[in-house]
Amino acid sequence: MATEKAVVLLSGGLDSATALAIARAEGYHCYALSIDYGQRHNAELQAAKRVADAGNVVEHKVLRLDLRGIGGSALTDQDIDVPRHPAIGIPVTYVPARNTIFLSLALGWAEVLCAWDIFLGANAVDYSGYPDCRPEFVRAFEQLANLATRAAVEQRGRFRILTPLMQMSKAEIIRTGSKLGVDYSLTVSCYAADERGLACGVCDSCRLRARGFHEAEISDPTPYRC
Amino acid sequence: MATEKAVVLLSGGLDSATALAIARAEGYHCYALSIDYGQRHNAELQAAKRVADAGNVVEHKVLRLDLRGIGGSALTDQDIDVPRHPAIGIPVTYVPARNTIFLSLALGWAEVLCAWDIFLGANAVDYSGYPDCRPEFVRAFEQLANLATRAAVEQRGRFRILTPLMQMSKAEIIRTGSKLGVDYSLTVSCYAADERGLACGVCDSCRLRARGFHEAEISDPTPYRC
Repeated sequence: MATEKAVVLLSGGLDSATALAIARAEGYHCYALSIDYGQRHNAELQAAKRVADAGNVVEHKVLRLDLRGIGGSALTDQDIDVPRHPAIGIPVTYVPARNTIFLSLALGWAEVLCAWDIFLGANAVDYSGYPDCRPEFVRAFEQLANLATRAAVEQRGRFRILTPLMQMSKAEIIRTGSKLGVDYSLTVSCYAADERGLACGVCDSCRLRARGFHEAEISDPTPYRC
Repeated sequence: MATEKAVVLLSGGLDSATALAIARAEGYHCYALSIDYGQRHNAELQAAKRVADAGNVVEHKVLRLDLRGIGGSALTDQDIDVPRHPAIGIPVTYVPARNTIFLSLALGWAEVLCAWDIFLGANAVDYSGYPDCRPEFVRAFEQLANLATRAAVEQRGRFRILTPLMQMSKAEIIRTGSKLGVDYSLTVSCYAADERGLACGVCDSCRLRARGFHEAEISDPTPYRC
């Protein structure tokens, strides 16, 4: 049982809410980090606040970094529509370098907090095919973190990027979180959620989520628009 | 001679101004990226604008990301003084994970621009000992970039982090830039520059810079406060 600090990247979606619950169950003192990056689905950030409150985190920090200045994704550029059908290859909802950027910010905060462990709700089973959700990406970031920082150079610790969901199906994630008491009605996964947090039901993220609840045989609490 | 696009991280200091001049001399179409991270020495950003204008960049983007929310450095926390004497070990002017964060943002923009090359003015000779200026850090980031991105997975290119100053002394950097026409009076290196861009003359960065001009036998155009 850990009694250490951990930084948990918290988007407000189903996966990161589960990762937070796992970190808490393992005994970590959790510091949740959300990024207000100009995402189309801003309801996600409201969800992150609800999840952080329900998860008894020590602190929930929201950093503002407007990635609309970079664009290149349906999530940060209003001129690119969120697809209503599965894509061939990596979909346009991919945000360039997003997890690299988010993990970098988590690393900076972890260093200030003297925390060595960073939780990321990445999953490489029921996912959208994003390259920065794969185990080889996570391992490469971990290696980088231990070269990049004063803490790693001057102290004896090593940073770890913990991805407890990596090899789980969406149904397994939902079962795990449900056992740990995660209230999934607080979370928002939809790429095109409206300001009330109501989900579209047709985007890639909605479909993966709905299928997960169905396969887990757990009632789906997601509020849909229609 | 390259005719490709490159993203150049431009702080407004002496090193990044030289890296930009080298990229231009190699024929790159340069896209300069500066980060307004709440740095104490905001005069740096004004310098970055001047350097970008003088360097004929295609575009100069300034992204706002307030790292004061993370703190942990004399450059982002007003409660930590900029030292007036050399430090033992890595000094308090180290900003947690700064180059990791900045390279991540450069990578995101490079991906959108279809640029494969990113210039970073890192130097491991006359420097403050920051871990994220070392060659092994740069190589690790390059490896990460080629796992993290859709461009690297779906296309045949590879991202490169180019650090032409890495093995140069400060005097060599200044001689190189001077030959390429860099106007160093436009740049600000001081960690404690005032709002007019006047340098303190005593911080680590000022001392390295002054010694560089002296050793290069080039007249130092730095405006000092006293």
